[in-house]
Amino acid sequence: MFAPAYLDHNATTPVDARVLEAMLPWFSRQYGNASSRHEFGRAARSAVDQARAQVAAAVGAHATEVVFTCGGTEANNLFVKGAAALVPAGIIAISAVEHPSVREPARSLQRQGWRLREIAVHAEGCVATTDFSDAMAERPALISVMLANNETGVIQDVAALAEMARPVRAWFHSDAVQALGKISVDFRDLNARGVHALTVSAHKIGGPKGAGALIVDKRLELAPLISGGGHERGLRSGTENVPAIVGFGMACELAVAEKSAVATRQLSLRGELERGLAEQGAVIFGLKAERLPNTVFFALPGIDGETLVAKLDRAGFAVASGAACSSASPEPSHALVAMGVESELARGALRVSLGRDTTEQLVRDFLLALAETVFQLRRLAALAS
Amino acid sequence: MFAPAYLDHNATTPVDARVLEAMLPWFSRQYGNASSRHEFGRAARSAVDQARAQVAAAVGAHATEVVFTCGGTEANNLFVKGAAALVPAGIIAISAVEHPSVREPARSLQRQGWRLREIAVHAEGCVATTDFSDAMAERPALISVMLANNETGVIQDVAALAEMARPVRAWFHSDAVQALGKISVDFRDLNARGVHALTVSAHKIGGPKGAGALIVDKRLELAPLISGGGHERGLRSGTENVPAIVGFGMACELAVAEKSAVATRQLSLRGELERGLAEQGAVIFGLKAERLPNTVFFALPGIDGETLVAKLDRAGFAVASGAACSSASPEPSHALVAMGVESELARGALRVSLGRDTTEQLVRDFLLALAETVFQLRRLAALAS
Repeated sequence: MFAPAYLDHNATTPVDARVLEAMLPWFSRQYGNASSRHEFGRAARSAVDQARAQVAAAVGAHATEVVFTCGGTEANNLFVKGAAALVPAGIIAISAVEHPSVREPARSLQRQGWRLREIAVHAEGCVATTDFSDAMAERPALISVMLANNETGVIQDVAALAEMARPVRAWFHSDAVQALGKISVDFRDLNARGVHALTVSAHKIGGPKGAGALIVDKRLELAPLISGGGHERGLRSGTENVPAIVGFGMACELAVAEKSAVATRQLSLRGELERGLAEQGAVIFGLKAERLPNTVFFALPGIDGETLVAKLDRAGFAVASGAACSSASPEPSHALVAMGVESELARGALRVSLGRDTTEQLVRDFLLALAETVFQLRRLAALAS
Repeated sequence: MFAPAYLDHNATTPVDARVLEAMLPWFSRQYGNASSRHEFGRAARSAVDQARAQVAAAVGAHATEVVFTCGGTEANNLFVKGAAALVPAGIIAISAVEHPSVREPARSLQRQGWRLREIAVHAEGCVATTDFSDAMAERPALISVMLANNETGVIQDVAALAEMARPVRAWFHSDAVQALGKISVDFRDLNARGVHALTVSAHKIGGPKGAGALIVDKRLELAPLISGGGHERGLRSGTENVPAIVGFGMACELAVAEKSAVATRQLSLRGELERGLAEQGAVIFGLKAERLPNTVFFALPGIDGETLVAKLDRAGFAVASGAACSSASPEPSHALVAMGVESELARGALRVSLGRDTTEQLVRDFLLALAETVFQLRRLAALAS
């Protein structure tokens, strides 16, 4: 089998072998419905409880603050729509670089009389504190600012923003999907600073697709998106996906245990990658901002990102052009537009996101393949002109 | 390991070995995000496409009519809330025996000015056509009547009801979660008779938890519950749960291929079970109605259902007392109350739901264990009085 080199870990990650092993008994042997009252059901319930404790521990939360969902997108929707349903229509303020799973639900609130206020970011991708202040002066009822961006990897100082937002008494949410396992995520601390809800997801940290959670301060009341049997304290009905939840718990435990070792290795690889890219004339987005150790978002002037992804794919390297989750629509990256990157350069954007097991050799091979591909593309362009 | 006998297949089923085998490559080897444009992404996309065709074929629908969700509860919510969001507030008519995942979202519409009209069932659990007619005269905008009930197994003549509803021009939905794999489910035929949407789920048919679908006539416009990257034609955003979707496809294929053989065997076992229960003085609910071949819902006068489930569990038999999905709340079965069963008898209700592999020996062992347990409970009651 042709096994291309995978450098797209912000889109999704392979399920860690230890995670899959933990999941396997729950498919065909211990297959009970966690709401059933017999032996099978109790075993499933206890597995879900254990995973809940693991997820809580990984983010510094209490187990009772974890609401399992089927993923990060659902958790972001649960905050935005669930919180909005129980307060009078007002303003929702979100950063201009939020993931579509925050932006689209926020937009959808406009039909119910809400106003969407996007908070500007400066050229490096960090939330502009002056515009954040201005937005706070408009007294939003809901605020959402991500911990780290999926495309640029830029980290926001969410704790500081939450403290600035405090006098407004809004509900403050942060999408921590890309942050978890890569940088420290501490709900207890963030909550003390004024953050009320946090989104996390399993499949970005070596866990399975199909599990995520909203970590919720219990003072924040939410209307469920999905109602029915009353699972997850009435906040999210539907038979618990036991194997996925078990895998999520294990992935959280591993991600936190191995975070600093992985981050150290990735920072060193990222440095090597960025030096190589600089030599090839690349513009690295958010270069001066604090960023995730595994993410490099860049463009090579005059080269189209989509074409480059396709050529690199044929050469055996899997990378992303825009945000993978929405690559159904080939618009220039929303984040780059917000950062004021001119659209021609933005269309050249390429994202490399390293995994836990990415090797130095792979980074070097990638740089070589990139150089060759770009050389060919430039020659073709020269011949055509 | 203690392996109790599992007789609760309407709550959930073990993942079929062939299904798990189909899923396995998609966790750690072919782990791409189906929205990514490289080799990993395309492989995942093609697996999702194949599963979509399998699910469509199993229910007689076109692949483009399949909207994947994370389960039946979400699919039911998507119909109720998604359809209601795009029409003026009016009446939603549902049968009095709907699953909580239809009933609760229907109730939640009341906050937005909707009126909930429950349609009565007669004593055997079938929708009362006179009351259905009366409800239609009130001109509901949305209608939901399940194909088969999770507790009683009673099958509704949804096609006939949809034809009766036609002049009203409402959107008609049917929850087919318990029907799929047990009786014939043909969306093409139902759609021709006036049904616009159908809910199906993987984990009730030997597939994994975490996958379901709403089969939707494209004339029916729905607002998404979960918005973001625009997956599933904008109707359901979030990274596709590729392994679960692949498993769902395979489970559908197997369920349909093996349906008639399984149904024949189960009908014979159900007959034996019911004869044994009758000898023990059991009242079988919906006995005269057309019912799923695998389901028997009954009570033994004077015996409490919860106590019986616990005793049988200790004896090694996993059965359900009420609807497993909501056994968090030990209220008497909603379906039985709707059927006019007096509450003392209803509190004695026990559900046995057979699986594909349930043997004749197991049914006999269960009848014996039940007789012994009931004998002991009655003796204790006699001693206490």
